[in-house]
Amino acid sequence: MPAPILVVGSVAFDDIETPAGHRPECVGGSANYFSATASLFAPIQLVAVVGDDFPQPHLDMLSERGHGVDLRGLEQVEGRTFRWRGRYDEDFGDAETLETQLNVFEHFDPKIPEGFRAAPWVFLGNIHPELQSAVLDQIDTPRLVGLDTMNFWIASARPALIEVLSRIDLLIINATEARLLTDTSNIFDAADAIRAMGPTMLVIKKGAHGATLFHPDGMFTAPAVPLRSLIDPTGAGDTFAAGMMGYIAQADTADFATLKRGMINGIVMASFAVQGFSLDRVLTLTADEIAERTRTVIDLMSL
Amino acid sequence: MPAPILVVGSVAFDDIETPAGHRPECVGGSANYFSATASLFAPIQLVAVVGDDFPQPHLDMLSERGHGVDLRGLEQVEGRTFRWRGRYDEDFGDAETLETQLNVFEHFDPKIPEGFRAAPWVFLGNIHPELQSAVLDQIDTPRLVGLDTMNFWIASARPALIEVLSRIDLLIINATEARLLTDTSNIFDAADAIRAMGPTMLVIKKGAHGATLFHPDGMFTAPAVPLRSLIDPTGAGDTFAAGMMGYIAQADTADFATLKRGMINGIVMASFAVQGFSLDRVLTLTADEIAERTRTVIDLMSL
Repeated sequence: MPAPILVVGSVAFDDIETPAGHRPECVGGSANYFSATASLFAPIQLVAVVGDDFPQPHLDMLSERGHGVDLRGLEQVEGRTFRWRGRYDEDFGDAETLETQLNVFEHFDPKIPEGFRAAPWVFLGNIHPELQSAVLDQIDTPRLVGLDTMNFWIASARPALIEVLSRIDLLIINATEARLLTDTSNIFDAADAIRAMGPTMLVIKKGAHGATLFHPDGMFTAPAVPLRSLIDPTGAGDTFAAGMMGYIAQADTADFATLKRGMINGIVMASFAVQGFSLDRVLTLTADEIAERTRTVIDLMSL
Repeated sequence: MPAPILVVGSVAFDDIETPAGHRPECVGGSANYFSATASLFAPIQLVAVVGDDFPQPHLDMLSERGHGVDLRGLEQVEGRTFRWRGRYDEDFGDAETLETQLNVFEHFDPKIPEGFRAAPWVFLGNIHPELQSAVLDQIDTPRLVGLDTMNFWIASARPALIEVLSRIDLLIINATEARLLTDTSNIFDAADAIRAMGPTMLVIKKGAHGATLFHPDGMFTAPAVPLRSLIDPTGAGDTFAAGMMGYIAQADTADFATLKRGMINGIVMASFAVQGFSLDRVLTLTADEIAERTRTVIDLMSL
């Protein structure tokens, strides 16, 4: 039984328009995507907040999924759950945010249950960097802390982000965010600058061009899963992180060889996430399908 | 001694502005870049035209370089050599053409010398597709014909391009060109459409994101050489093709394993081309430097 991953992030309702269709009122949120995916590889300890409108069956599903999602850190408070409405255009790039209702998330103050504080693996989902720091203040010394962020926090909360980056081990970020964070156009210069901020390990995601890992023992690049079409990119970043953190927890090490394979697992899991709205595709996938896509990626890069 | 590669293309004077500087009146042209690079791997048979202003020392250098460039197919005619003036902006993307003087190239009608007609490997550089077809009309049945083209011909000479594509084996093209040629945004759909036009083998180049090979035996992706800065992208495509065709000629086969390694050799050779104006960097590089960058690319993709 792998040791648990503590994840903190959002659990939300999304309303999503993409060139493939429109899905109103579906479950989303970084910690939700992460938990539903990473629980296939390791037990998850979820810290988040939802309102009294959030569907219990979805929470029951999470708690029973894979190695299980421990919901003792999920606050349920009076009011409406965080809601996000967004739209993707034809190139399926960054979403345009049409509406954000913070609702119960506005006063979210993550409290880490006593039983979660010794988690060896920690993932700080895409929330305000001050909240990410507040989580680190409450826990013991994990073996590895991973973090995700986004353009919005880089632009609006840079000092708090720089502060939390100095306390983490693995940053998972896309190429646009890496350039924005470092005000640098060359991706290798950006990687140097980010690692000088704190994280010794860094993954720069490049969408259809795959991802590059920077690790103290070297650099590694893997291609994306060849996809003919996308349905909904929402949650792809969280699912990527979940595949990678899940692989690390399952392997019980963060050495270079494990992070390489972990990054491929992230690429594979994200490739499923984008092939359905919400968690549609992630919730139906089988171990054989994961193995098949992993083989596809490895074959693509094999001499 | 490897069998020869027949190459047809331009030999030119370039005037180049990039964010790294300005180089007036330097030697350029697709067949010039190709010959200077591929001659390191196999003997080259060059078919092109220059005016009476072209410097003999450069031609002497080519004929003596590596396995040698056979100049019997290089016409020298009265008048000025083809001249191109272009500029790259900060992102080092496609060049903006500021001026083209066809000069002696205007009436170029490639004549393949008797001794060149049995070349087993043929590369049709980036010239009008009707001229590319005219070359194929004059030669025996080669083992492999490679071809390069560009946006300009895709837009202005599409029927002639479609015609010559039906007669070749390997198309080497960038992602933007592949999309334009097939009016398709997804790169895998574009690859299918291109291979339905004739070439059984296809390389789609993605600049800093590396390249993808499509071969009857499978698909293969390799990353670019990590570069911190560029000097001049002119000739990168020709140099890529030269590295790949040169590797195939040296290995004396076009099987999947050879094309994978050949594509990596193309990536490596192009990485040198962009680090100097004109042929500056290509002409100084050593076998050790080539081996070192090949190792870098292979390490980047090794689990």
